[in-house]
Amino acid sequence: IETKLPKVGTTIFSVMSQLALEHKAVNLGQGFPDFEPPQGLRDALSRAMNEGRNQYAPSHGTAALREQIAIKTEQLYGRKVNVDTDITVTSGATEALFSAIAALVRTGEEVIVFDPAYDCYEPAIELQGARAVHIPLSVPSFAIDWQRVRDALTPKTRMILINSPHNPSGAVLSAADLEELAAIVRDTRIVVLSDEVYEHIVYDGARHESVLRHPELAERSIVISSFGKTYHCTGWKVGYAVAPAALSAEFRKVHQYLTFCTFHPAQVAFAEFLASDPQHYLDLPAFYQPKRDRFRALLQPSRFKLLDVPGGYFQLVDYSAIRDEDDVAFSRWLVQHGGVAAIPLTPFYESAPGTRLLRLCFAKSDATMDTAAERLCQL
Amino acid sequence: IETKLPKVGTTIFSVMSQLALEHKAVNLGQGFPDFEPPQGLRDALSRAMNEGRNQYAPSHGTAALREQIAIKTEQLYGRKVNVDTDITVTSGATEALFSAIAALVRTGEEVIVFDPAYDCYEPAIELQGARAVHIPLSVPSFAIDWQRVRDALTPKTRMILINSPHNPSGAVLSAADLEELAAIVRDTRIVVLSDEVYEHIVYDGARHESVLRHPELAERSIVISSFGKTYHCTGWKVGYAVAPAALSAEFRKVHQYLTFCTFHPAQVAFAEFLASDPQHYLDLPAFYQPKRDRFRALLQPSRFKLLDVPGGYFQLVDYSAIRDEDDVAFSRWLVQHGGVAAIPLTPFYESAPGTRLLRLCFAKSDATMDTAAERLCQL
Ligand SMILES: CSCCC(=O)C(=O)O
Ligand SMILES: CSCCC(=O)C(=O)O
Repeated sequence: IETKLPKVGTTIFSVMSQLALEHKAVNLGQGFPDFEPPQGLRDALSRAMNEGRNQYAPSHGTAALREQIAIKTEQLYGRKVNVDTDITVTSGATEALFSAIAALVRTGEEVIVFDPAYDCYEPAIELQGARAVHIPLSVPSFAIDWQRVRDALTPKTRMILINSPHNPSGAVLSAADLEELAAIVRDTRIVVLSDEVYEHIVYDGARHESVLRHPELAERSIVISSFGKTYHCTGWKVGYAVAPAALSAEFRKVHQYLTFCTFHPAQVAFAEFLASDPQHYLDLPAFYQPKRDRFRALLQPSRFKLLDVPGGYFQLVDYSAIRDEDDVAFSRWLVQHGGVAAIPLTPFYESAPGTRLLRLCFAKSDATMDTAAERLCQL
Repeated sequence: IETKLPKVGTTIFSVMSQLALEHKAVNLGQGFPDFEPPQGLRDALSRAMNEGRNQYAPSHGTAALREQIAIKTEQLYGRKVNVDTDITVTSGATEALFSAIAALVRTGEEVIVFDPAYDCYEPAIELQGARAVHIPLSVPSFAIDWQRVRDALTPKTRMILINSPHNPSGAVLSAADLEELAAIVRDTRIVVLSDEVYEHIVYDGARHESVLRHPELAERSIVISSFGKTYHCTGWKVGYAVAPAALSAEFRKVHQYLTFCTFHPAQVAFAEFLASDPQHYLDLPAFYQPKRDRFRALLQPSRFKLLDVPGGYFQLVDYSAIRDEDDVAFSRWLVQHGGVAAIPLTPFYESAPGTRLLRLCFAKSDATMDTAAERLCQL
């Protein structure tokens, strides 16, 4: 069978998680917490199942959950959205990203992505017969060089895909970045796809600069988020897209034929939990800050060099003092001989920059962190 | 915004469910049971959440669930499949159908579908830049005229999409049909996509002729099923695809970037429930047969003419004795003035044949059926 996706293998996340299992390594690779979603949320889900919420949900999500998302969007970002037309619940952020790209990008068009780019972006673009135009982020800040974006624009540019807090680097966009972006897309037909799944995980008192805070940008953007990162349940696969009605209408046309709707009892549970504790997500920085700081402190004595972590739950480390080999080779060596699974950055680049960086997930209990750090400090 | 899917509006299922709500009609439109999944299954799901199964599942599904699917496939259809390579768990059958089409069908190719065709097929085909070639089924048998299929073949034909038991008609394919199909695809590059989500719901002692029973066909087919129809939980959105390793590999490339994985606790619950009651699905015909027979008996005194129902949980009725108008108009009239929501067939046709048929779902409790039938008998 001739493949439609010649560049695609098994995702690096699956590969590293599998290797972690095989080698009994501590898994700091694939990004997921090793602690649990709130008991109240799990109980609400059980109740929903036992109260007859087991059949199809509305395709764009239950009204109660969309209502809660609208409340959050207004309270946190000052943006009023229409509950009926502007919000669509999806089977995880991955489905939302795919739906947005499939709904809006056509054969021959171009989508600007920033490398390192999360791995699901490009296959979704390629399946539309479109082309991902890769712009590398500066290292080690992982900031966007907006002049490079302006230089990359062509009449075929249909979409700019941003991601803040950024995976894998943790870099965050500033209000000034959003202004640059707004100036670039003004008077064009370019749509912004903004992957903000780590929106509530920012450090040192910073605030997340959501595209939704910027009225002009918000009018031409699809903003993606996810409950998985926020409520410690990455395996529940509930995400959503917020976009103006006209964009949402196109998004929903694809979404309804991609999955139709999302696991219904979880929607009931999130709606109930959010209503009872409407600002749970505001506690998230205070929850993750000590984890980030503790993990960094634990690695201080190691030979890894720690990069800054403004957002997200990943620590980038430079391993060049330990071994001089590329990051894919080093991550394979590390999972086998160092007892820790990490994620190399090369798979997220069109052309690998030869950096000596690995990504480590610190959404972990103290015990997991301790074991991993002990191993990493021995190298 | 210029749409990529000019023919697509809101699915007829969402439209009719919404109208049913507004008019307080009995909803026999969208196909879902009004009874609950087994308590043991719900309890298993709650346990999974409380036992720490809340993070990402493996992208192609948990090993335990794939194992159970493999056991079923062998016991029921005599086909041995490889647990590691041939089974992929998906976020409902809809995701599986989309992934299969996106993975295998290219721009300019053709997919043969049979009208009336379930509504998610064509948009998935169109999004690939491919073309759905519609062959109408005979009325009222809804059988496939294989000569028409042979006549429709071109060098561009990439896929034939079959669906048995058929939605909306309930028609089932025979072993002879599978022989015809095998002869047609032999020595071609045509892949069969077989939508078998109602596989366990057949009547009058018949057996379901799965493509998996036919070794030659199975080698070039992707077979889609769903737990939603079988365990009365359409809103849980867990489906799967069974296909030989080479086809599965392409399927998984798309699946991993469409949703990555499926709600993890439900996978744990299905695996446990299937292991404890491995042939639960064998009870399904005995569960649905009295419902079908009861519904038909209730409608006997009405002015609707009942078509045969060999499989599935839908009854087609001819309303021509009641009103002389097209089925979309009649279904709108019925939900407003008759107090019953049904599904018209026209939306499932490329060119509507002018039949006077509606689809009614009888996966309902006695009380729901009684109310609906009382209303329908008054017309
Ligand atoms: C979908 S598996 C990967 C999870 C993740 O977002 C990450 O590790 O970056
Ligand atoms: C996905 S909503 C439609 C459910 C269904 O399969 C049907 O009613 O035919």
